[in-house]
Amino acid sequence: MNPIEGDSDTETVRKLFVRTDMEQLGLAPHNPVNGPTKRCPLNPPLDLLRHPPRVAGVGLASFVEQLQSAGGQAVQASWGIPGRGDRELFELLLGLERVHGEAISKANETALDRLLRGDPVLEGCALAKDVVPGLGPNTMYHAGPPVTWETMCGPMRGAVAGAAVFEGWASSLEDAYERAAHGEFEFRPNHDADAVGPMTGIITSHMAVMIVRNQTFGNRAYCTLNEGLGKVMRFGGNDQEVLDRLKWLARDLGPSLHRALTAHGGMALKPLIGRGLTLGDEMHQRNVACTSLLVRELAPAIALTATSQEQAQAALAFIGANDQFFLNVAMAAGKALTDPCRHVQGASLVTAMSRNGIEFGVQLSGTGTQWFTAPVEMPQGLYFPGFSEEDANPDMGDSTIVETIGLGGFAMAAAPAVAGFVGAGGATEASAHSRAMFDITMRAHPEWQIPALGIGVPLGIDARAVVRTGIVPTINTGIAHREPGIGQVGAGVVNAPYTCFARALGGLAATLNEAV
Amino acid sequence: MNPIEGDSDTETVRKLFVRTDMEQLGLAPHNPVNGPTKRCPLNPPLDLLRHPPRVAGVGLASFVEQLQSAGGQAVQASWGIPGRGDRELFELLLGLERVHGEAISKANETALDRLLRGDPVLEGCALAKDVVPGLGPNTMYHAGPPVTWETMCGPMRGAVAGAAVFEGWASSLEDAYERAAHGEFEFRPNHDADAVGPMTGIITSHMAVMIVRNQTFGNRAYCTLNEGLGKVMRFGGNDQEVLDRLKWLARDLGPSLHRALTAHGGMALKPLIGRGLTLGDEMHQRNVACTSLLVRELAPAIALTATSQEQAQAALAFIGANDQFFLNVAMAAGKALTDPCRHVQGASLVTAMSRNGIEFGVQLSGTGTQWFTAPVEMPQGLYFPGFSEEDANPDMGDSTIVETIGLGGFAMAAAPAVAGFVGAGGATEASAHSRAMFDITMRAHPEWQIPALGIGVPLGIDARAVVRTGIVPTINTGIAHREPGIGQVGAGVVNAPYTCFARALGGLAATLNEAV
Repeated sequence: MNPIEGDSDTETVRKLFVRTDMEQLGLAPHNPVNGPTKRCPLNPPLDLLRHPPRVAGVGLASFVEQLQSAGGQAVQASWGIPGRGDRELFELLLGLERVHGEAISKANETALDRLLRGDPVLEGCALAKDVVPGLGPNTMYHAGPPVTWETMCGPMRGAVAGAAVFEGWASSLEDAYERAAHGEFEFRPNHDADAVGPMTGIITSHMAVMIVRNQTFGNRAYCTLNEGLGKVMRFGGNDQEVLDRLKWLARDLGPSLHRALTAHGGMALKPLIGRGLTLGDEMHQRNVACTSLLVRELAPAIALTATSQEQAQAALAFIGANDQFFLNVAMAAGKALTDPCRHVQGASLVTAMSRNGIEFGVQLSGTGTQWFTAPVEMPQGLYFPGFSEEDANPDMGDSTIVETIGLGGFAMAAAPAVAGFVGAGGATEASAHSRAMFDITMRAHPEWQIPALGIGVPLGIDARAVVRTGIVPTINTGIAHREPGIGQVGAGVVNAPYTCFARALGGLAATLNEAV
Repeated sequence: MNPIEGDSDTETVRKLFVRTDMEQLGLAPHNPVNGPTKRCPLNPPLDLLRHPPRVAGVGLASFVEQLQSAGGQAVQASWGIPGRGDRELFELLLGLERVHGEAISKANETALDRLLRGDPVLEGCALAKDVVPGLGPNTMYHAGPPVTWETMCGPMRGAVAGAAVFEGWASSLEDAYERAAHGEFEFRPNHDADAVGPMTGIITSHMAVMIVRNQTFGNRAYCTLNEGLGKVMRFGGNDQEVLDRLKWLARDLGPSLHRALTAHGGMALKPLIGRGLTLGDEMHQRNVACTSLLVRELAPAIALTATSQEQAQAALAFIGANDQFFLNVAMAAGKALTDPCRHVQGASLVTAMSRNGIEFGVQLSGTGTQWFTAPVEMPQGLYFPGFSEEDANPDMGDSTIVETIGLGGFAMAAAPAVAGFVGAGGATEASAHSRAMFDITMRAHPEWQIPALGIGVPLGIDARAVVRTGIVPTINTGIAHREPGIGQVGAGVVNAPYTCFARALGGLAATLNEAV
């Protein structure tokens, strides 16, 4: 059957085309879950004779502008060809909408409700081996969807080699490369082990990880401590300086933080992140406010519980010298928030987005821990002096978990300064990025406000909306050198590949059709 | 002579009327000092046949709007009757412009250059008696222009009584009131002693003050340590809790901070304030970012140099618990920056604005330490639960020094959150407040940027511009209860009284006419 011409259910078809928020015209029905970004059919008001007309234009903008300038209520609707013009995707969307539309929306409400009710608290630090599940004697957890040594990108190989030396599994970086090639290490995604890591994201037994507990659901998530700038393992660094720092993090800073957090009683991250947004952070490429707020809140306990004043000084100096210290905290918060949203049958809510430097992977609530992948894209951004796009590794890291919870690129309007840093223009462009994300998310966050927009961050990516509108998540990211051992060379903006979401939606349709 | 009808110098007269920035039309000549807010004559472009016209409308706005909507270069000029329609002031302005116009502008360039080159550094803490000049055995420094016990407002009397008990000059608050009435205390303005203090602003010998040094000019400025919220001496509080806290500040926190600052090497305040603006502070009613950045920068040194870990913990906890801790630092920075701008003959640059709860006082560069006063106004704002405007004391404190250097109400656009706190609306209103200040200031600050406007804060109040345009400085302020001993009851926005500036300009004219 021809889904367009032969179908009498024009309302369903029309829904797939319309993109713009009509809420300002009062054309959208009140919906407490989908809030101000609810898409709606263009029902003409029936009481045209009693009230002035409210008009949505879908053609020439000048019609709407004339109405607006005359004081009329009018809005220009943006719309697009569903599924980026792909006939198969259009049929997938239409089929899902017809047969499972209501069930998916209901499942999404359940999944989103879990996301909203989550309450992440930074409660401590520990060695990975003592808390992260599934760490065997030769396990290396890494960022992104599954990857093998053979296909692994340069910086992740560099980090693997460094981690092997760090753990004593190899006598040198060369030795580590050989052992890796001989299959001596078991590679597994962090996301399979309640964990996340920025960029290469390598986690092994004797690295320190922070522990964030979702108090509502009781689950915990883990992320390494941020190593600072320069040569660091997350960007593929692996020399002695890098390994010595990892040792200090594991033996000194981690325990210091743990004592402080224990004395402090745990740090609630939801209000802290909310405050950070009002202070110009988006929690991916800008964490200056949240890092400062974290230091301010923990400094008294660090000073009191350190084993010496020198240790307190060193801990406070290390954290204070690194604007991005909070990134890893925000990532663990994101993981702690999204994990309980998994496994809601039929839900198209995106519960994870992550990259391993080769592939970008997406997980949906309704498809559990299954990865849907596509080749990663190259970030567009600004490079540090002496580097250019030729040096850049493609997109990498679990840090996109912050976009998954409405931060990072989604919250760029809250952080106009970051737009310049990632080469995305100024405040206007930053706001445009955030606004666009409302078309693929389910609601504005009720607590995490963007002061410049007077609205919460766009929360809850609906894979259906991505496939339908063709708008993909915007991600703020650091850029690693593509060779191992060099480190960060820039920062930029990157798109999540459309194909991931199309495949994920296909996967979701399969689970629903099986269930029927 | 009739200055309007009989004068052939119409250009001078016209200058007095025109208010709006023409720079966007390219109608303003480039002027590196006056920058984008330079007012200029409306010279019609001579090359009308070669280039499209650039139009400034002074009448109906619809003319300009039509041109703008057709893509033309047009701007609506705002203008007003100079001197608020006061004939005498108009003649003063016209006379000054004709006879001394160029000399005043040149003097202002000199004074403003000093303001711009200033480099304030927080270098330590000390007891007032050891650093603040002129402190005799019974001296009480206070906020604002000179005041006597007889005319003093309620909260300042309360603070005086508390300070007398604190210093051991009185056995009780009642005893202090009697001694004050008998003239036992010498009252002098902080501004006469290189010092500033918020609200009541009382400084006596054994209070701790922070020391800010202007590295460019070598002068130092002093301000008390911020006491936190609730019952505090700056809002007229004077019970045992208030006095005990002052003792702890003098004996414990002050020395801790001093040791930390000595070890740290002094904290540069210009970049810190610049960063604070990008983080949503305006440094008067919102200091959350700068307080956090200060803690973050000083915490390692505090931890290391404290006499015990408990002392470090207490110091960090006290500062960290008070979002407004940085206000007093910003005030000392303002005083350190403005003092070197005094005594430039003929300069109409405002070097101090301050209030004692009864009178608002202004000082100009060209009139040195002379005060020009008028009755203070009542802040318009929001009250804490249980309080209303009936409880409010009129405007008070030296904290307007931050507006004098382009912060506070002048920088409200950088801190949309503060607009809500002081009852001034949202981001739009905050930006409008900042924009209006460009009409009475000499330039946009080259370093202290307002991200939302893409321009620096309005810097360098020109008393001529205030008198000419009738636009007065906007000040963000806390509101004290009018009775002693109660404390803060709200926060709001208040105008500097126009009359101060008219009187100051008259005073400046007198010095110029004497000199001629």
